[in-house]
Amino acid sequence: MLTISHRGEQMPPSPIRKLVPYAEAAKKRGIKVYHLNIGQPDIETPQQILDAVRHSDFKILEYSHSAGNESYRKKLADYYARVGINVTSDQIIITTGGSEAILFGMMACMDAGDEVIIPEPFYANYNGFAVEAGVIVKPIGSSIETGFALPPIEEFEKAITPKTKAIIICNPNNPTGYLYSKEEMEILKQIVVKHNLFLFSDEAYREFCYEGTHTSALHLTGADDNIVLMDTISKRYSACGGRIGAFVTKNTSLLSAVLKFAQARLSPPSFAQILAEAAVDLPADYFDTTRSEYKKRRDTIVKRLNAIPGVFCPNPGGAFYAMASLPVDDADTFCQWLLESFDYNGQTLMLAPASGFYGTPGLGKQEVRLAYVLNTTAINAAMDCLEKALETYNK
Amino acid sequence: MLTISHRGEQMPPSPIRKLVPYAEAAKKRGIKVYHLNIGQPDIETPQQILDAVRHSDFKILEYSHSAGNESYRKKLADYYARVGINVTSDQIIITTGGSEAILFGMMACMDAGDEVIIPEPFYANYNGFAVEAGVIVKPIGSSIETGFALPPIEEFEKAITPKTKAIIICNPNNPTGYLYSKEEMEILKQIVVKHNLFLFSDEAYREFCYEGTHTSALHLTGADDNIVLMDTISKRYSACGGRIGAFVTKNTSLLSAVLKFAQARLSPPSFAQILAEAAVDLPADYFDTTRSEYKKRRDTIVKRLNAIPGVFCPNPGGAFYAMASLPVDDADTFCQWLLESFDYNGQTLMLAPASGFYGTPGLGKQEVRLAYVLNTTAINAAMDCLEKALETYNK
Repeated sequence: MLTISHRGEQMPPSPIRKLVPYAEAAKKRGIKVYHLNIGQPDIETPQQILDAVRHSDFKILEYSHSAGNESYRKKLADYYARVGINVTSDQIIITTGGSEAILFGMMACMDAGDEVIIPEPFYANYNGFAVEAGVIVKPIGSSIETGFALPPIEEFEKAITPKTKAIIICNPNNPTGYLYSKEEMEILKQIVVKHNLFLFSDEAYREFCYEGTHTSALHLTGADDNIVLMDTISKRYSACGGRIGAFVTKNTSLLSAVLKFAQARLSPPSFAQILAEAAVDLPADYFDTTRSEYKKRRDTIVKRLNAIPGVFCPNPGGAFYAMASLPVDDADTFCQWLLESFDYNGQTLMLAPASGFYGTPGLGKQEVRLAYVLNTTAINAAMDCLEKALETYNK
Repeated sequence: MLTISHRGEQMPPSPIRKLVPYAEAAKKRGIKVYHLNIGQPDIETPQQILDAVRHSDFKILEYSHSAGNESYRKKLADYYARVGINVTSDQIIITTGGSEAILFGMMACMDAGDEVIIPEPFYANYNGFAVEAGVIVKPIGSSIETGFALPPIEEFEKAITPKTKAIIICNPNNPTGYLYSKEEMEILKQIVVKHNLFLFSDEAYREFCYEGTHTSALHLTGADDNIVLMDTISKRYSACGGRIGAFVTKNTSLLSAVLKFAQARLSPPSFAQILAEAAVDLPADYFDTTRSEYKKRRDTIVKRLNAIPGVFCPNPGGAFYAMASLPVDDADTFCQWLLESFDYNGQTLMLAPASGFYGTPGLGKQEVRLAYVLNTTAINAAMDCLEKALETYNK
């Protein structure tokens, strides 16, 4: 019989997108839906970087270098220097989105059957890339009560087996918004050095920190071979559709291996490399404006959530996500109900049930992730809906 | 010890790019190098499709749908209808280059340890994607004497084991330029139906056929579940840097699986989808012009090659590659020598040694691939160099 692969069957569907048909049906009924479910920012892409593409004047849309244009890699090294990360252009491989950097890292560092430890809840697509690479995800718990801080070192050591090859963190975190402290990053370094592991640090949200400062994995010293930075311009410049990311490491044998993966797929997208290169020249205050807008939204959503009876939302230190526990038995059912059976003055909201972000079945059933990618007026309207919805749902 | 993966070690380096340092050194010595080694066309990308991107006026570079913009998929279905391929927009998943379509196909149809049969010589990056997917490539021979025609059906049947899941062909072929006949495509269909295999048909060069007409795998009837079309705009519109391809099948369970792989990496590049959509509206004679230019080049290069003593080049029916056997013991050494130790009036040429396109070690040692991506004046100059080089080399 002709069948697809087990891998194709095991590949997880996107947990964020599974409610989409219910949202579409709600819109067809004339309901306004506030989308707090997905990390697509409403912040405009800076005009001058879109113009860099629109004013380009080449005649042939050629392959770039497989590692990305050298001119862009040099510029990107300048950007990194400004955030205290000292790397050279040849320690950077430009990838097709942060997604490809994660996949390349898993493939180049791990074989089928190897294990990777990830504090849960975590970015759900790590599961997908792990299935593609045949790698086994070993989640260890972080909890909403402690605001999703790094689990104690003993939890990591309990999870480490001879098959363990890497730890993945996302800092600041998607979905929790947690910003790892310098002390926590130092602890991670000690673990990876002691146990000969790779530390994959997904820093997609680096520029969006509201409490304290960001500690990049590449700020750590004495672990050059262990550390891999996985990066993307998607959120930094509201340029998700560009599909430009970066794989950054000082480990030369890993760089050589990843370059072979990069050569197999020929090159990252050319248009968006022009945009990404121009982005490095944005005025120094560009992130201040965006960051203060996101901070205002965070302050609004966290305050509104915690004011609803039975709701708890720890204050996220970065990114543009908040996790909240709701007074419901099953957030999946509640989120579907919000779209299928509820409206308040013709409006409702779409949330991401947190269960999809946990690796351990049964965890996070009362939690949701809220992406504060809408302006404060919309956030307030959405919170009005949520408040009324919980009242109605629990009657 | 901290080590990269076996997969990372086994990943093949690009055979086309390994001579690059010698070419760079030659240029530094002031030598003009004719690049016949790589499939980067010199044909200009049509102005109107570049303008579609340059005149775009969106404010946020958003993620597209994971399967690609619906507007583009609908247009692409129109394009396919014009070449006799009847598919709907929901049978198309837009990929990041043809590369990703191949990788998705291998991952969704095959598990680690499964086997794929590919007539050799073949596009070298199939090896890389196979390593990524843990799939074993089983080459079967086609030879320069028969112009690289499809091997007899018995060769396929001898190679099929219980682990065999798919056959890959590239039509017209890279690296051989061979255009499979309707009869050969029917034979392939019979094999895949009889043995419950997938047929992956890489049709990147569909529009460049100079002898007879193109038979797409999707022209075949009665094997809808078995057939996967892997496509790209890279060569068709001289838009290699766009990174837009397509995975096309009527097999619904395969489509569902591939959509999950597509969701994990979020979306294909947005800018180039605009370009690709505009490309469907190019005037009907667009391909006539490009095709006649490539045909002129093919005629020139094949004639020149066969006029050199000891050289044999079968006439390729399509694509923009020719394979030639040379009167040398080892084409790898000869190609390096061309760059390191030879020039004719300050000029030399860069060729791709064919060994990298064979799966069986030791095959193709006297053969080279020539990409006729330069105009006829340059081709003639390069052939002058080759003629002199062989004289000198064999003295």
